[in-house]
Amino acid sequence: MKIREIGERAIIDRISNSLPHNAVLSAGEDDCAVMDWGGNYLLLTIDMLHKSTDFPDKMVPWQIGWMSVAVNLSDIAAMGGCPIAIATALGLPADTEISFVDEIIEGMNFCARMFSTNIVGGDTDEHDELTTVCTALGCVKKNELLRRSGAQIGDLVCVTGELGTAEAGLQAMSMDIPEYVEKILTKKLFEPRPRVNEGIALAKSGVVTSMMDISDGLALSLYDLGKSSNKGFIIDEDKIPILDETMVVSPDLELPLYGGGDFELLFTVRSDGIEKAKNVCKLTIIGEVTSGDILIKRSGVMSKIAARGHEHFS
Amino acid sequence: MKIREIGERAIIDRISNSLPHNAVLSAGEDDCAVMDWGGNYLLLTIDMLHKSTDFPDKMVPWQIGWMSVAVNLSDIAAMGGCPIAIATALGLPADTEISFVDEIIEGMNFCARMFSTNIVGGDTDEHDELTTVCTALGCVKKNELLRRSGAQIGDLVCVTGELGTAEAGLQAMSMDIPEYVEKILTKKLFEPRPRVNEGIALAKSGVVTSMMDISDGLALSLYDLGKSSNKGFIIDEDKIPILDETMVVSPDLELPLYGGGDFELLFTVRSDGIEKAKNVCKLTIIGEVTSGDILIKRSGVMSKIAARGHEHFS
Repeated sequence: MKIREIGERAIIDRISNSLPHNAVLSAGEDDCAVMDWGGNYLLLTIDMLHKSTDFPDKMVPWQIGWMSVAVNLSDIAAMGGCPIAIATALGLPADTEISFVDEIIEGMNFCARMFSTNIVGGDTDEHDELTTVCTALGCVKKNELLRRSGAQIGDLVCVTGELGTAEAGLQAMSMDIPEYVEKILTKKLFEPRPRVNEGIALAKSGVVTSMMDISDGLALSLYDLGKSSNKGFIIDEDKIPILDETMVVSPDLELPLYGGGDFELLFTVRSDGIEKAKNVCKLTIIGEVTSGDILIKRSGVMSKIAARGHEHFS
Repeated sequence: MKIREIGERAIIDRISNSLPHNAVLSAGEDDCAVMDWGGNYLLLTIDMLHKSTDFPDKMVPWQIGWMSVAVNLSDIAAMGGCPIAIATALGLPADTEISFVDEIIEGMNFCARMFSTNIVGGDTDEHDELTTVCTALGCVKKNELLRRSGAQIGDLVCVTGELGTAEAGLQAMSMDIPEYVEKILTKKLFEPRPRVNEGIALAKSGVVTSMMDISDGLALSLYDLGKSSNKGFIIDEDKIPILDETMVVSPDLELPLYGGGDFELLFTVRSDGIEKAKNVCKLTIIGEVTSGDILIKRSGVMSKIAARGHEHFS
C-alpha cells in the first residue's frame, strides 16, 4: 500500500506506535516530544517545509525564514514551553542566489530573536526543491507543562487570535478581491505569529487544563484534543473569532473550521479560572468541554464537526 | 552570486557569522551547538540527507534509516556527548510504499537503540525526493566537553577505525572487483558506525585535548581542527589505518585523505596520556600536533595536504 492511500496522520500514528521510547511523551502524542530533565521537561520538535507546498511564489525569502522558525516555536508554545535554541537544515538548489539564502537566515533569526531565542546551528544540503527544516528545543517547569490530555467536562474551550485567516490568505491570492484585503490575509499566512508569550503565560496561570496549536485547522485540532483528553466539545458558531477580511473571502465556516496554517493556540480553562486566563492572555471562549461528540451549535441546532482539515499525502 | 560558486563550507561560515547567538558554541564552530545547562552542556545537531546525494540505489531502506540517525549520533560523539533523544522529519514521495517507510523507521530505531537513545518524535511531509532529516539532542558534563579547539603542540593525532572505507565503497559499486570486497566496503558506507561509546570514553579519560568527526574526509577535518586549535599537524603516511579491501579499490592515499562518509573520530591526545586513551578506546596514532602547516610525511619527505574533500554545491 502507498502512503497517499492512508494519509499523513495515519503515517505519523503508525510510526509513533512502532517506536519504543523513554520520553515522557512522544511527538506523535503531543506537539513536542517531552523528556524528563531534573525539575524541568525538555521539549523537542521538528518541522519540514518546502517550496511546492508551503512557500507560494508571493512569499519573500525573509518570510520563508520567519515561517520555518515560527511553526517550531508554535509547537513549543503549545506545551507552555520557553524556547532554548533553534537549529536548521536547508536544502537549497545549487543555483540559489546567496542573497536569497541570506534573507532566509535573516527571517529565521528575526523570528527567533523576537521570541528570545537563537539559531544555534544547522546543516545545508544541495536539493532540487527549496526545503527548510527547523528543530526547536524548549523547556518548561514540570508543574507547568500543558498537554493535549487534561480537559475536564465543564471547562471552557478557548483560542488565541482569529481562525481561518491563513487559509483565506491562500485562497485570496487566486481571487479577484481588493489588494489591501489580500495583503492583510497573506501577511498572516506568510508570517504566522507563534503564541510563545501567550503559551508561557497560560502555563504559569495554573488554570489551563489542556492545550495544543491549531496548525491543521480547528476541526482536526478539536479531534486531537478530544482524543487525548477523552472528551467532546460543543463549539458555538457565533463565538469563533474571524477577521472581517476572512469573511470577504468566504462568509461561511469552511475557513475557520477546516483551513490550516493559523498557528493559534487551542486550550481549555477551568470555568472558575477564566478571569485569570483572560488577565494573562487575549483569548476568545468558543465553547465548552463535554463527555460527548465534537459538535457545533448553529442557531441553536447541534451538528457534528467533520474530522477533516489540512493533511499531507491526501 | 550563486551558492554553487562558493560551496557548502563558505555558505555555512557565512550563515554562522551572520547569526548572533547565546550558545557556548554554534554548530558552525563545532560538530554540535552547545548550550549552557547547569552543570552540563546540552548538544544539538541536525543533518539533512536525500536520495540523489546520499542514498545509492543499492542501499536498502533499513540502511537509509540507520545512516540518517548515525550521522547525527556521530556529531554528538564528536564532542564526547551522550545522546538524549532523536527527532526526525521525513520528506516522502506520495507513492512510497508504507513498508518502505516502516523499514526506514526500523533502521532509525535500531541505530538509536544501539546507542541507548530513542526516536522521540518527528514530522512527515510530501516531497518529490526522499529526504531524511534527523536532529539529535545530547548532553555532556561541563568538564568533559571536547571541542575542536584545544590541540597543543606535541599532542598525538589519533583516529578510530579505518579511513577511506566509505568512499571506497562508493567507487566499488561501479568497478569490476570481487563481490565480497564490494559488500564489505558498501556495508561500511551504508551503515556507518557512530563512535558514541568511544567519544564518551575519550571525554571521560581526561587526556584528549580536541576532537571532531571525520565526515568529509581526513584532509578537511585536519584543516577544521587545525583552524579551531590554531595549530598544524604532521601526519605519517604509513600510519593511516586503511582496510585491505580499500586498497583493492585504490592503493594510494586519495581515499583515506579525501574521501567522505567514514564518520570516524579524529582527536588529539596529550603524549603522556596516550596509554590511558588506548585503554578506553581502540585507536591509531597517525601523527602529531605542530605549530606549522598541515603536512604529510611520505618516505621521510614532507608535503602539504590539500584542503579538499567531500563538499556539497561544488
